[in-house]
Amino acid sequence: MPYLALIRHGESQWNLENRFTGWTDVDLSEKGVQQSREAGRRLHGSGYTFDTAFTSYLRRAIRTLWIVQDHMDQMWIPEFKDWRLNERHYGALQGEDKAAFQEIYGKEQVHQWRRSYAVRPPQLEPDDPRHARFEPKYRGLEPGEIPAAESLADTVHRVLPCWREQLQPRLRAGSDLVVAAHGNSLRGLVKYLEGIADDAIPHLDIPLAVPRIYEFGDDGAIRRCFYLREEGEEEL
Amino acid sequence: MPYLALIRHGESQWNLENRFTGWTDVDLSEKGVQQSREAGRRLHGSGYTFDTAFTSYLRRAIRTLWIVQDHMDQMWIPEFKDWRLNERHYGALQGEDKAAFQEIYGKEQVHQWRRSYAVRPPQLEPDDPRHARFEPKYRGLEPGEIPAAESLADTVHRVLPCWREQLQPRLRAGSDLVVAAHGNSLRGLVKYLEGIADDAIPHLDIPLAVPRIYEFGDDGAIRRCFYLREEGEEEL
Repeated sequence: MPYLALIRHGESQWNLENRFTGWTDVDLSEKGVQQSREAGRRLHGSGYTFDTAFTSYLRRAIRTLWIVQDHMDQMWIPEFKDWRLNERHYGALQGEDKAAFQEIYGKEQVHQWRRSYAVRPPQLEPDDPRHARFEPKYRGLEPGEIPAAESLADTVHRVLPCWREQLQPRLRAGSDLVVAAHGNSLRGLVKYLEGIADDAIPHLDIPLAVPRIYEFGDDGAIRRCFYLREEGEEEL
Repeated sequence: MPYLALIRHGESQWNLENRFTGWTDVDLSEKGVQQSREAGRRLHGSGYTFDTAFTSYLRRAIRTLWIVQDHMDQMWIPEFKDWRLNERHYGALQGEDKAAFQEIYGKEQVHQWRRSYAVRPPQLEPDDPRHARFEPKYRGLEPGEIPAAESLADTVHRVLPCWREQLQPRLRAGSDLVVAAHGNSLRGLVKYLEGIADDAIPHLDIPLAVPRIYEFGDDGAIRRCFYLREEGEEEL
């Protein structure tokens, strides 16, 4: 009965500063480091061990994973980094103050960008220095793969091939997996796993650095799903 | 012209305590963390970037690598962990005080264990709790692969297949590589790369956390080899 633990990264510097982050490579805050440590200790204390780890190309998720591995005494397990687990690309909103944008564009528009399924925020111009095509780490991608702005639907569509190619075959082979990623890439996985509707998934809030664990039966169906919180398991 | 950087892990807790470490999974000391940071900063400041990273199954090497990657802004690159890059297995000496062992067995015997090429230290008994067969991370190895004690020659023999299968093909394809490993597994690579004789290699001391860089020509031959020290490049 393999299990899959989804972990959203700990608090980042920009969560703190209330700015749109997206693919901006912001680090964890000190609180985020602490949250990640607690997640690792809790997994370790509850007897979990993982065979393989997955994370995104963004340091807030990688650092969360490394801290979790460290506190589980599992630094040695194979890790795979996959850009398809990155946060939703927030286009021209990246780096902007959420409250300031709300004043300019109106509360309703910003709410749509943040909470609709298919609406894309304004795109980054191709020559915008914030564009991912200037970053060495995305050099291996096809030009058409590098987003300039994504809706949640876009994010879900690029996360699912990672599920099908990397995660699902390993779970079927009996491996226990951990995925340290982001609010919206994890929404993509949860949407698929639990069959959540397009209009409901934007409203699912996954807490920072709290392992969301799926236990699978031998038939591949989900047997149990819960958050591993400080106080214990919270069934979902 | 690809390059290969070999980095011996920073100072570990047992380097400090003057104990035989081997496969014992000891962490970096605070000084070791600091040394690793400096190595990462120096590589970054000198303009190095790596395509792929390799390390052992031991946390002092993994942590050194992670710190280097962090300070190079290269946390996202693929990392591969390979037990064949582990330190030489020190058998029944693991965990023992070097000075105390010298008193029991005599200076000459301990010197032989440490500085001969083919002499093995006393083996760990199969039921010794220090035996690697009890550790989950070595569960994937064939029983015959798990050592109970290694000479330097044994270590060299298991490191070379890692070179041939993992490192050499990538360098030939033009990738720049970093290997964070241990005094004796790195001796194995250096012995092969530079054609050092059996009786000379035990006397090669690789400093802690100082990148030893090989630049290769398009013909695969070594063009340059140097330490990247704080004061600059030291040609070898």
